[in-house]
Amino acid sequence: MEDEWSRLGLDLHLRLSPAHGLRTGLEHAVRDAVRDGRLSPGTPLPSSRTLARDLGVARGTVTQAYDQLVAEGYLTSRPRSGIRVADQPAGPPAAETVPPPHAAPSPAAGTDLRPGLPDLSGFPRREWLAATRRVLQTTPGAAFGYGDSFGHTELRQVLAEYLGRARGVVTTPERVIVCAGYTHALRLVCQALRRRGATSVAFEDPFLPDYPALAEETGLRVSRIPVDSEGLVVDRLTGEAAVIVTPAHQFPLGVTLSPARRAQLLAWARRTGAFVLEDDYDGEFRYDRQPVGALQGLAPDRVVYAGTASKTIAPGLRTAWIVVPPGLVAPLRAAMRWDEGYVSVIDQLALAQLIRTGELDRHLRRCRARYRRRRDRLGDAVTRHLSHGSLSGIAAGLHAVLRFPGTSASEPLLLSHLEERGVTVDGVARFYGRPEDAPFGIVIGYATPPEHAYGNALDTLISALREREPAG
Amino acid sequence: MEDEWSRLGLDLHLRLSPAHGLRTGLEHAVRDAVRDGRLSPGTPLPSSRTLARDLGVARGTVTQAYDQLVAEGYLTSRPRSGIRVADQPAGPPAAETVPPPHAAPSPAAGTDLRPGLPDLSGFPRREWLAATRRVLQTTPGAAFGYGDSFGHTELRQVLAEYLGRARGVVTTPERVIVCAGYTHALRLVCQALRRRGATSVAFEDPFLPDYPALAEETGLRVSRIPVDSEGLVVDRLTGEAAVIVTPAHQFPLGVTLSPARRAQLLAWARRTGAFVLEDDYDGEFRYDRQPVGALQGLAPDRVVYAGTASKTIAPGLRTAWIVVPPGLVAPLRAAMRWDEGYVSVIDQLALAQLIRTGELDRHLRRCRARYRRRRDRLGDAVTRHLSHGSLSGIAAGLHAVLRFPGTSASEPLLLSHLEERGVTVDGVARFYGRPEDAPFGIVIGYATPPEHAYGNALDTLISALREREPAG
Repeated sequence: MEDEWSRLGLDLHLRLSPAHGLRTGLEHAVRDAVRDGRLSPGTPLPSSRTLARDLGVARGTVTQAYDQLVAEGYLTSRPRSGIRVADQPAGPPAAETVPPPHAAPSPAAGTDLRPGLPDLSGFPRREWLAATRRVLQTTPGAAFGYGDSFGHTELRQVLAEYLGRARGVVTTPERVIVCAGYTHALRLVCQALRRRGATSVAFEDPFLPDYPALAEETGLRVSRIPVDSEGLVVDRLTGEAAVIVTPAHQFPLGVTLSPARRAQLLAWARRTGAFVLEDDYDGEFRYDRQPVGALQGLAPDRVVYAGTASKTIAPGLRTAWIVVPPGLVAPLRAAMRWDEGYVSVIDQLALAQLIRTGELDRHLRRCRARYRRRRDRLGDAVTRHLSHGSLSGIAAGLHAVLRFPGTSASEPLLLSHLEERGVTVDGVARFYGRPEDAPFGIVIGYATPPEHAYGNALDTLISALREREPAG
Repeated sequence: MEDEWSRLGLDLHLRLSPAHGLRTGLEHAVRDAVRDGRLSPGTPLPSSRTLARDLGVARGTVTQAYDQLVAEGYLTSRPRSGIRVADQPAGPPAAETVPPPHAAPSPAAGTDLRPGLPDLSGFPRREWLAATRRVLQTTPGAAFGYGDSFGHTELRQVLAEYLGRARGVVTTPERVIVCAGYTHALRLVCQALRRRGATSVAFEDPFLPDYPALAEETGLRVSRIPVDSEGLVVDRLTGEAAVIVTPAHQFPLGVTLSPARRAQLLAWARRTGAFVLEDDYDGEFRYDRQPVGALQGLAPDRVVYAGTASKTIAPGLRTAWIVVPPGLVAPLRAAMRWDEGYVSVIDQLALAQLIRTGELDRHLRRCRARYRRRRDRLGDAVTRHLSHGSLSGIAAGLHAVLRFPGTSASEPLLLSHLEERGVTVDGVARFYGRPEDAPFGIVIGYATPPEHAYGNALDTLISALREREPAG
């Protein structure tokens, strides 16, 4: 198979690992070649038809691989010039809205549909216990002492491999740091930036308000950068030392950072020497195509990648991880001189065991199927029952945003009406730097209820919304 | 039994819980009466002979209870005035040195006798796994979400009860905070002090140098207060907002804060409005009599009590706890707004389970017996083989200090000689603010080696020391 790749017409030897499927293998091969410079910016790639014929694979396989790499910012696709390796690539944002609709349901009590939680009833109890048993049976006593504050080597190795495979992250284990949740990770990064002399950081607007406040607490000035339908409006960045973004699925709006903006963001970081903190809080959950690979893979020297077990397993584990550029390793070591590692070594090794044995993958497949069904039911209900409702941010993640375009809907009135009906959701406004300027919308965390309660929760929500559907 | 206590001649109704033994029950009863004011400062107590007769118990029982309460600072004992309730009590420091000695042993390789670790080979694997199983079988899914940053209610309740019972700590569960190790606890306390406007804190000299450095990192000025044979030299304190002390077993010298100094310290705190952080890092380990109760019990409004699972179970669990005065609850809430709780809820509940079922007590009894044997062997070897060696700090904890009084011993020379023989211990000097002014001594962490290796470790140490025993 390897030899076939040299027939790309590029005098290029792309290695295809037999462990991958055809499409994924092609993606990996091209991604690697772009990363290591064998495919330089501007290089034209063969048309999908040509390459498919050369490789003896279906044309759809090539098209899908190309699409994925365009979405990730490695390639560009322009009407007349075909597919090329990106330098500062441009492309349209992914359309992620579902049109409005009509119909009717029934109520329940204490329906929590706030975003930010997975279905905790799905905690993999049996698997976690088995992993813990294995750890306690096999780990040498010395491992229970004070360990490396960056985390246990075994977990860092497993994470480096997992993140490369599942999220396109490029790293060695030495640059993986185990943290006690995303807040801990963010605080450490802010402290490391301060040690390097940083004075300001930027956050998306909207975003979770606690995080900018935490950055301020560490002594940094915070600016807020608007988000539009392509994600962060990169040209509003100025001299900040870093920007915190949610490229795979903006929180809470749910847009994916467009290929053009990904490129523009990395160009900004390279030009100004700034860092990008990629908050990949729900990157494992994408429903209609393969996940958009991590931004970090395009610029491992400028991007801090942050992932978490809070959405894939549960926040109660208090486990997250960051992958840091070489330039931040020493400042993070210094910041963690006091901040010893905070995660129990037993939990670290149990998580490593869960990933290594494939249990986490199996768990994630179950979760993905469950959340996709929920999302589809939500989309269907909105279409059928709400004539003005428009759902966005649904391609990925654990929440969606519901708007009522062209109406005069009022968020406080709607939220208090829902509260009266026993339904708790978040309004969009609380995530904005200036809530009074926020557009109208509610954030629906469809993963939050336990599986058995989702049907009722959805019915209750929709029926309460219908009672107040705004005039068009 | 309750009624007998009213025959104290004090018109005092002391409640004796039937759960306690006679001596412990008497201690508890008197301690409680002093705390809640039923026994006011200066009140004379009946002689041990009288009370023993009144209660129908052995005189030794009463004597032991009184001794304990004198050591803890609740009572005073003066030659002519007998036993009274303390206000600013005075009393001699406990003698904790073992005289010098002679004889010979054999070497091993890679002998780590540094202090700060329990025997990790004794990690209660079976018990921890059983507790984890129980937690995963019984905990409702909702518990795996984001919990209270102060910790899970269940663990906080169990800790409040345990600390009251085992260490004489007076608290409600609301004032117990679960932390990810002592460093995390200390940082939080420093941050809370800063929020209250504090500018400086004091540490013992000697002490672990990382902790003063951490306090400085949070923006506090640090002063170092000398330690003598009675513990912290309290009258060297000035206007610090808080002082961090190790009253049960000073680190690393091993002295117990004397009753007089305990009283003096609390008087200083009350007079100046300062707080005392009681670092009770190895308070569970006392070998020759009941543990000296926590200072916190004497002044719950001024003392922050800090305990940890690092010595009782293992540092790898990353679990510690603080009990805070009411006045620090709000600043700690504020400090933890960003610092979400860092300890996995599964681990919190497993620890609660371990304590509730009595497994921790059984584990501690096994450890205490093991470490006491090791300490006795160390003391014996020093006595028999080292003519100038003098061991101190041996009444409690997991380490002892070896000095060579009246000799011209040089710490760097001795440490490098031991290193050549494959033995790692700490010198006392590194714990001093000005290492060059430190007295000579080495700190021997006798709990560190695995059980099967202790004999060889000890032989290697003693034989290396004999090679260099300084001229008298």
